[in-house]
Amino acid sequence: MKIICKKTDLAKAVQTVSKAVPAKATTSILECLLLRAEKEEITLTGNNLELGIETVMPGNIEEEGSIAIQAKVFGEIVRKLPEGDVVLETGEKDQATVRCKKTKYNLSVKSAEEYTCIPDMERKNHVTISEFDLKEAIRQTIFSVADTSSKKAMTGELWEINGKELKIVALDGHRISLRKIKLKKEYEPRKVIVPGKTLAEIIKIIGGDPEKEIAVYFTENHIQFEIENTRAISRLIEGEYLKVEQLLSKDYGTKIKVQKKELQECIDRASLLLKDDAKKPIILNIEENILSLEAASNMGSMNESMFVVKEGEKLRIGFNPKFLLEMLRVIDDEEVFMYFTSAKTPCTVRDEKDSYVYLVLPVNLSAAA
Amino acid sequence: MKIICKKTDLAKAVQTVSKAVPAKATTSILECLLLRAEKEEITLTGNNLELGIETVMPGNIEEEGSIAIQAKVFGEIVRKLPEGDVVLETGEKDQATVRCKKTKYNLSVKSAEEYTCIPDMERKNHVTISEFDLKEAIRQTIFSVADTSSKKAMTGELWEINGKELKIVALDGHRISLRKIKLKKEYEPRKVIVPGKTLAEIIKIIGGDPEKEIAVYFTENHIQFEIENTRAISRLIEGEYLKVEQLLSKDYGTKIKVQKKELQECIDRASLLLKDDAKKPIILNIEENILSLEAASNMGSMNESMFVVKEGEKLRIGFNPKFLLEMLRVIDDEEVFMYFTSAKTPCTVRDEKDSYVYLVLPVNLSAAA
Repeated sequence: MKIICKKTDLAKAVQTVSKAVPAKATTSILECLLLRAEKEEITLTGNNLELGIETVMPGNIEEEGSIAIQAKVFGEIVRKLPEGDVVLETGEKDQATVRCKKTKYNLSVKSAEEYTCIPDMERKNHVTISEFDLKEAIRQTIFSVADTSSKKAMTGELWEINGKELKIVALDGHRISLRKIKLKKEYEPRKVIVPGKTLAEIIKIIGGDPEKEIAVYFTENHIQFEIENTRAISRLIEGEYLKVEQLLSKDYGTKIKVQKKELQECIDRASLLLKDDAKKPIILNIEENILSLEAASNMGSMNESMFVVKEGEKLRIGFNPKFLLEMLRVIDDEEVFMYFTSAKTPCTVRDEKDSYVYLVLPVNLSAAA
Repeated sequence: MKIICKKTDLAKAVQTVSKAVPAKATTSILECLLLRAEKEEITLTGNNLELGIETVMPGNIEEEGSIAIQAKVFGEIVRKLPEGDVVLETGEKDQATVRCKKTKYNLSVKSAEEYTCIPDMERKNHVTISEFDLKEAIRQTIFSVADTSSKKAMTGELWEINGKELKIVALDGHRISLRKIKLKKEYEPRKVIVPGKTLAEIIKIIGGDPEKEIAVYFTENHIQFEIENTRAISRLIEGEYLKVEQLLSKDYGTKIKVQKKELQECIDRASLLLKDDAKKPIILNIEENILSLEAASNMGSMNESMFVVKEGEKLRIGFNPKFLLEMLRVIDDEEVFMYFTSAKTPCTVRDEKDSYVYLVLPVNLSAAA
């Protein structure tokens, strides 16, 4: 194999596929990326068996062939090469050379045959979504995916397509995040659970341009994203996802409209006293058009108040400040509407267009005191 | 005690003195800073018993008094307060309130009497140095201070004043860094060993303005820096410092002039292959006006060559790449002169004006192979 390509193109391609290469794996081949120069295309692949990413990059193929190469070191080497043309060539058995200007590396590589390629997917029934919409919807929900859980489904996001709408739900037992994306066309109904780890990597390779579109393909067990020259394919999670509709009731006894930034900064200040004792809540005390916040720990106490527009009953309710902060951080609106029923039932935050709903469970104040 | 001050002034003062407050200490009073409102001055103090920092800040004193307050939490609180006037007031026993706009904190504090104040120093025999010169000279030497050593002196820097010159030396058994600062006046000869940890904090509070000056005072056991409204006082290290003059011989068998940036980038690229095996050297092979660099590990090998201007003999010599990189990073010249005697003796790098000298021991190539 012998290829010649620009350093910047190679660096970008390696960076993209490395998102699917684990830093430490049980076998060294899993820490490699696959580089193929075949059929007039230079293709790089990373695959951790859950998520696979493949990208086609520009360059000249002087001799066809393929190798598997340690992704981390190769990525660092390519990134630090001088700007210019890179010549990558296989030499004796298990050796490859990388040359750029006066720099020459000789690297140990593995045979491409050892590498587990990513599956080819039947390319039909795809859904088209703008880069911007998809990137935002993932960012605005992924923080509430459970890292680990006895219920495997909770480590993923539910993606539900219904007509002209994609609904994304993430939940972890303390909270629910729900975002809706409007699609340009009508699609058949479909429901899948996408692993949170996959999505955490996918948002890193989505550009975020509102004019560019991503094609998303589904099969029974896989989801595939096509982002320009790159495709990423991930296993889906099997099983049943919690039905959230019944939890997201629109009844409420108290509703407030609050300045998001003011509330966020106040909770941030209150958390300083709470962070050594994660179980202590921040208390929201809703009076007539005044929201006062209180926090107390062995370091001291704080309180602060702000004007709000209130409807309904007065209420005193406690929350884990982290859950409120993570929610407020991803809401772009300047004003948010918070709905409460009682001190022991969840608070929901939703916009008037119903394009998002966040639900957070309260902390039992009598138990926390 | 009751004071009113601007949030930004308070935040800056807390940040400055916190450099001398340990994050974790054996007694909780050591994690505090002292705040005094006395004699028409608001003074903050941090003191870890090795280094003490005191700063005077603007503000109005409504009632005199003093408290000791947990530095880390207080620093975070002040930083996150809204912009505006802060009112700090002592309340009941061991309580203080911090108010700013609609935010109010109640904090547990300690009696100022528990706090160990920093000593007042006899203010004579001071040396004046520009902020810029001092900050640069510390930055350009401190990386080669030993973190820990059986020889306590090696954990500090030797500061030697002789006439119109301040010479700063740092060494750790593998290398020596030496920088000279020209002073504006002539001073009496003096030799002290300043703790490396002190200097690491001091450079953070020095602004770096070439027009501003710092006064440095000495006593037998202490050094004091006066930087605008702030004074920092540190213990000196007792004992004898290694005499480096005899090691910094000007004899050489090989001399090269090399482009610093090119050499630095090349060593950086070579280190990628070496970092999993810290004992592997980078080899410099000096031929007729060509310097070639080689590195090899179980990951592979690399070589690269560059043009140099050479005088004297050919030479093949190995180094720990980290020591070369740390040295090159702090040299501002575009071209550096490297002097060698043999593959088993140190390499020195010095400028023609002799304002700096760096010495690095080689790695024994036959032992490393």
